[in-house]
Amino acid sequence: MINKKAYHIAIVGATGAVGQKIMDVLAARKFPIQSLKLLSSERSAGTKVEFNNKQIVVEKATPESFAGIDIAFFSAGGTVSESLVPEAIKHGTVVIDNTSAYRMNANVPLVVPEVNAKDLKDHNGLISNPNCSTTQMVAALKPIDDAFGLKRVIVSTYQAVSGAGQEAVDELIKQTEASLNDEPFEAKILPVKGDERHFPIAFNALPQIDVFEDNGYTKEEMKMINETKKIMNRPDLKIAATCVRLPFFTSHAESIYIEIEKDGVNVSDFWDVLKKAEGLKLQDDPDTQTYPTPLSAANKDDVFVGRVRQDLDNKQGFHLWVVSDNLLKGAALNTVQIAECLIKNKWL
Amino acid sequence: MINKKAYHIAIVGATGAVGQKIMDVLAARKFPIQSLKLLSSERSAGTKVEFNNKQIVVEKATPESFAGIDIAFFSAGGTVSESLVPEAIKHGTVVIDNTSAYRMNANVPLVVPEVNAKDLKDHNGLISNPNCSTTQMVAALKPIDDAFGLKRVIVSTYQAVSGAGQEAVDELIKQTEASLNDEPFEAKILPVKGDERHFPIAFNALPQIDVFEDNGYTKEEMKMINETKKIMNRPDLKIAATCVRLPFFTSHAESIYIEIEKDGVNVSDFWDVLKKAEGLKLQDDPDTQTYPTPLSAANKDDVFVGRVRQDLDNKQGFHLWVVSDNLLKGAALNTVQIAECLIKNKWL
Repeated sequence: MINKKAYHIAIVGATGAVGQKIMDVLAARKFPIQSLKLLSSERSAGTKVEFNNKQIVVEKATPESFAGIDIAFFSAGGTVSESLVPEAIKHGTVVIDNTSAYRMNANVPLVVPEVNAKDLKDHNGLISNPNCSTTQMVAALKPIDDAFGLKRVIVSTYQAVSGAGQEAVDELIKQTEASLNDEPFEAKILPVKGDERHFPIAFNALPQIDVFEDNGYTKEEMKMINETKKIMNRPDLKIAATCVRLPFFTSHAESIYIEIEKDGVNVSDFWDVLKKAEGLKLQDDPDTQTYPTPLSAANKDDVFVGRVRQDLDNKQGFHLWVVSDNLLKGAALNTVQIAECLIKNKWL
Repeated sequence: MINKKAYHIAIVGATGAVGQKIMDVLAARKFPIQSLKLLSSERSAGTKVEFNNKQIVVEKATPESFAGIDIAFFSAGGTVSESLVPEAIKHGTVVIDNTSAYRMNANVPLVVPEVNAKDLKDHNGLISNPNCSTTQMVAALKPIDDAFGLKRVIVSTYQAVSGAGQEAVDELIKQTEASLNDEPFEAKILPVKGDERHFPIAFNALPQIDVFEDNGYTKEEMKMINETKKIMNRPDLKIAATCVRLPFFTSHAESIYIEIEKDGVNVSDFWDVLKKAEGLKLQDDPDTQTYPTPLSAANKDDVFVGRVRQDLDNKQGFHLWVVSDNLLKGAALNTVQIAECLIKNKWL
């Protein structure tokens, strides 16, 4: 067990969008840092990055990079995590991995602290951070499950391009400019970098996030399904997802239909539960057109919930609209919160 | 009964987006026109509009405008329809109304010809054209209901700004340009022209289409629910909707979950039914990333269906992704198809 006043930290994938956000979050939350090592691929090594008014030179990540590191945040893609996470663990480093590489491993906790902090207790040196669209959904579903018993979930997502990385953001900007100027443009990145076909994202909607699996669902949809069951410790939960990429930069939105066990529950009971829940903010008033949007949720820590309605045919059915910044609660913030939770509980 | 080789036609709201599209559709389909009268508000009267290489001067719509008119297409908003549709009917004109003014009247057929052409037979001089998001959904649901029995529908929409009119299209363009140039911009039209508050649509998603009703649903959501039941003649159908406005210009997309009565149905049974259905085009092959998008469906007549998947928990549950041009099948095309159907069956 590591138990110090300040920690030796490494960030793998420090030059990427999530890596940069992790640094912002560490600084904003005054995370107790003794030293910060920034790691990347060979290509980005040598880049200088500012942190707390100091310049840090990014180094190439190698198995030896983790000597003396207490906590490493990995956010450089599944392949990098697969090769370097075991090396970091050998050095006694506690790894919080932002990729999907280990999320479904039975002995790796998959954690959203508001939902299943207790799963962190018996970690084996590695904790996985969930997929962005999963994190915000379980944050909203957990208090509902606790209060009313969750039976079933059907979600349709509205996801920002930043979830597909900086190249996807750049693609949206370029295509949008070209489209407004009536100029031709190419689609090279979205829906999935490296997949066979690419389609325009500017002024469009793409019903594919990540590659297709054999069952006709995309990997993103299966992540939402499987990760939600694991995080909520509800392998029996009925859950379906349709994931759609849209032309905006930040925040994922989700139209969620749920069915609950408890009878006689109404919208104001939901409001009461959601208002009290940690990390959630209720923004729900039809009279004043109050509801969250991707733009209103951007750069904020909370998961925002609005448009709570009882189903018109099923009194145990409810509809919600859940929005959160996909790079914060969906990625960097949750990652840092996992580390804070480990420290606070002396579970490091 | 009017029965001629060619007809005296009027378009009310001729200078609007749907009015213009109706003219395009009439020309493209070689609708049998004896004369074409273009009508508008006083403000737009005097405008010259080209139709089949002839200039037509738009006239101010008055109660007397309909003398001698066989068929009038109304698309100038609910208030205009409320005042002038009764006047047109008095002249013996058959009215096809694109607004929501009369859609739920028990003695006014609400028609998507592929779904309920038979309801046209006993019209009383007035037929309503459904809401755009309803039309494409019922076109996809009807063959499914016929083949497998539809029990339940849960839809989340992805709707284009053109559904809110030309001002909303202009607002998206202006805000997008300003946003890309890092300049300030105003929101004046969306989510709903004339509502209290307005929010940016550029690089955003607005979970409000039309005003809120007392039950917390928006009018657009209630239209989808009530119109679907009426068109499909299924007052018992369980149906819920969440409607979201998105930053693209043309076509609405819909993530639809359905439950069917029949047991033992699989995805290829669905494909068989959808392939044969009138007005539908199946675009569904995960292996080749084949699915419809708003851009791919724009300027096309069909309703496109893709992403058909069986629910993982409920064998009688299926997920679909339905896309169609909201100004064509969602408005102008369906309107003209109603007129064609009346003529073909001598029901005029």
